[in-house]
Amino acid sequence: MSEPGVTASNPPNSGPGESTTGRIEAFSDGVIAIAITLLILEIHVPSLEKGKTLARALLELWPSYFAYLLSFITIGIYWVNHHSFIRLFKRVNHVFLLLNVLFLMCIAFLPFPTVVLAAYVRDADHARIAVVFYCFGLFLPAFAWLCMWAYGAHYRLIDQNLTPRFVRSRTVQYIISVLLYAGTVLVGLISTSVALVVAVGLTLLYLLPPNRPEFT
Amino acid sequence: MSEPGVTASNPPNSGPGESTTGRIEAFSDGVIAIAITLLILEIHVPSLEKGKTLARALLELWPSYFAYLLSFITIGIYWVNHHSFIRLFKRVNHVFLLLNVLFLMCIAFLPFPTVVLAAYVRDADHARIAVVFYCFGLFLPAFAWLCMWAYGAHYRLIDQNLTPRFVRSRTVQYIISVLLYAGTVLVGLISTSVALVVAVGLTLLYLLPPNRPEFT
Amino acid sequence: MSEPGVTASNPPNSGPGESTTGRIEAFSDGVIAIAITLLILEIHVPSLEKGKTLARALLELWPSYFAYLLSFITIGIYWVNHHSFIRLFKRVNHVFLLLNVLFLMCIAFLPFPTVVLAAYVRDADHARIAVVFYCFGLFLPAFAWLCMWAYGAHYRLIDQNLTPRFVRSRTVQYIISVLLYAGTVLVGLISTSVALVVAVGLTLLYLLPPNRPEFT
Amino acid sequence: MSEPGVTASNPPNSGPGESTTGRIEAFSDGVIAIAITLLILEIHVPSLEKGKTLARALLELWPSYFAYLLSFITIGIYWVNHHSFIRLFKRVNHVFLLLNVLFLMCIAFLPFPTVVLAAYVRDADHARIAVVFYCFGLFLPAFAWLCMWAYGAHYRLIDQNLTPRFVRSRTVQYIISVLLYAGTVLVGLISTSVALVVAVGLTLLYLLPPNRPEFT
Repeated sequence: MSEPGVTASNPPNSGPGESTTGRIEAFSDGVIAIAITLLILEIHVPSLEKGKTLARALLELWPSYFAYLLSFITIGIYWVNHHSFIRLFKRVNHVFLLLNVLFLMCIAFLPFPTVVLAAYVRDADHARIAVVFYCFGLFLPAFAWLCMWAYGAHYRLIDQNLTPRFVRSRTVQYIISVLLYAGTVLVGLISTSVALVVAVGLTLLYLLPPNRPEFT
Repeated sequence: MSEPGVTASNPPNSGPGESTTGRIEAFSDGVIAIAITLLILEIHVPSLEKGKTLARALLELWPSYFAYLLSFITIGIYWVNHHSFIRLFKRVNHVFLLLNVLFLMCIAFLPFPTVVLAAYVRDADHARIAVVFYCFGLFLPAFAWLCMWAYGAHYRLIDQNLTPRFVRSRTVQYIISVLLYAGTVLVGLISTSVALVVAVGLTLLYLLPPNRPEFT
Repeated sequence: MSEPGVTASNPPNSGPGESTTGRIEAFSDGVIAIAITLLILEIHVPSLEKGKTLARALLELWPSYFAYLLSFITIGIYWVNHHSFIRLFKRVNHVFLLLNVLFLMCIAFLPFPTVVLAAYVRDADHARIAVVFYCFGLFLPAFAWLCMWAYGAHYRLIDQNLTPRFVRSRTVQYIISVLLYAGTVLVGLISTSVALVVAVGLTLLYLLPPNRPEFT
Repeated sequence: MSEPGVTASNPPNSGPGESTTGRIEAFSDGVIAIAITLLILEIHVPSLEKGKTLARALLELWPSYFAYLLSFITIGIYWVNHHSFIRLFKRVNHVFLLLNVLFLMCIAFLPFPTVVLAAYVRDADHARIAVVFYCFGLFLPAFAWLCMWAYGAHYRLIDQNLTPRFVRSRTVQYIISVLLYAGTVLVGLISTSVALVVAVGLTLLYLLPPNRPEFT
């Protein structure tokens, strides 16, 4: 093999200096699984002041449930898609590993905007910034994902049997995704509720399966 | 293969666009392992006001230990059963992956009702709602589990060599399970202690091994 | 195969209804890895009242560092030993899986006694109970471990080629271990410092490699 | 094989008493993935006293973002390098497993200095100690890493086909790394900002890929 880099699909322990996509998958799955499960730690037992009932206190946590649901589904979709995404790559190299770490950093960051959203979405004075910050938190992993794809496509890490049409369609799709999330951030500066609706809509859209790879 | 979907049991890296049940198992194991281990974070060091001894303070945490025990065993049983459950499936598809994410969301949510139960089960005014909420927390993963099974059976993702009798028996079993948990929620509205006893009894029941698959 | 139960060492996806020891290892590794890593969450940033310097505040956290170190090494040793331990088993069954969940519950519980120890070991009034509780926390996984071994040896889940001498030596070793930890609990009721020294000594002892399996 | 110890690269379940490097990788990946993901838990929702805006409060968390970024990248680089590092080893033994546990203990400890740094880096009175403590937190895993390498090289656990030149170059490289981190600790006692710049510079340096193994 005359190309630089590292073959994917090699067996475990195939030799020092080589990396399999398998280990990226395993580590990424780990970080994604932890980030998704940590979300619940941010929902705290309500303390009951002033004769409030527990039922009412639990219901008033709806922003926490909503944020939990939205972030859980978002990260869950990234998990589902990361799987088929990584399989488009035939080789990985050091820079790609670092870009994947960058992506995981954005995923692992998401619980923080989630809890900010939950804390302030009902607060008239601060809801706007909470929503903007949350949308920014959704923008980050989408952007890192695009970086991974653009790098992999440019440096021919992706399977060279993929049709140019498919590669182009994915590139366009990921750019649109980044632009839409950036748009949500901007929209959030004007209307909190529109931005939230768009963010939820985007998440629902991503529930659809990605287009299937086409090979020559 | 003329059927839609994706073959399970294929080797790793068998090609873009395919999913193995192996990766579902790995990710699910990850989320389940994290959710089960996070439970302990909800038990806090007691602060000792008014000359209380540490021994007494630690003993007074019994609702926390009880809730920890019950939730740990419940999630542990889901782990044991998820293993043999997933192996009944020959293929998985995008919707099934999302249903599995839904199931994991319910498992990952359980630590929250657990800590609510621990916090309020001794409180005469609020114990009822705490128990109802906990039973609802037990109901959720049972319901998601039924959804996975019903979807998999309907869209023929499960092994087509399983006998109809076995498939039917599992369907009945999972529906009964969901109904029983729903029943516990309703019972909890009337009697806190009966609901708790039923919930504990159900958990002990699930310690029994599931019936073995029958193949034609 | 005329024996009941489930063969270990079978390949992945070898068929519905079978369990490999591989998946026990993976899930156990997951829970152990999480429990060991969560320990750090219990060390909190010191707040600096009354003109205290940060250096002094960080040094005064020595009970936390000590408890962190002791629990990390203890759980780490369980990880190392669990590995070779599980490999002594040729088959696993439903009860063994549940006993392993019980063991993991004890491991996952350890962070709580650890933080109780860190919080009260310097407190003359409460150090004794804190140490007793911590020693009890060390006793629990040792006891669950003995249960796994005794069950596996009695129901012939362990490799039948292991020499009776080896099986006996391990049984004796695990019983002594449980008795020693029980002893530490009792000693702690009399002398805090002796119990701590014994607990540390036991941990250092377990740093030695276990005796190698002998096969007929 | 006349040498003591345990062969790496053996297939799973190759027999009791043997350890593969595969399981070290899996457990290490687990601990590293958890430690890296827990970092976000240390960033708390700001409470808004005195008419402060949420935007301003979120911006004022920059020390937390900075510390998160630096620690995430540091641990991420350890993950990337641990992978190719472990593959240089042909055999592992009990002591090496324990040294790896020591390394993981240092990695799992890093979130604590990270949060201390975030809490006090802006505080004129305490920034110096916070930086020194953080640099000490960076020193620890580098030191444990050197111990693993030195032990593995001395007891011939590493691949005996590696050229002496390569082994020497790595030894020198790891010693320099330890000395540099130790230097950062000392520098931090004099100048907070210089130490921080050097720590960031070192991290950026480690983004470069390690030199490739040379075989005879």
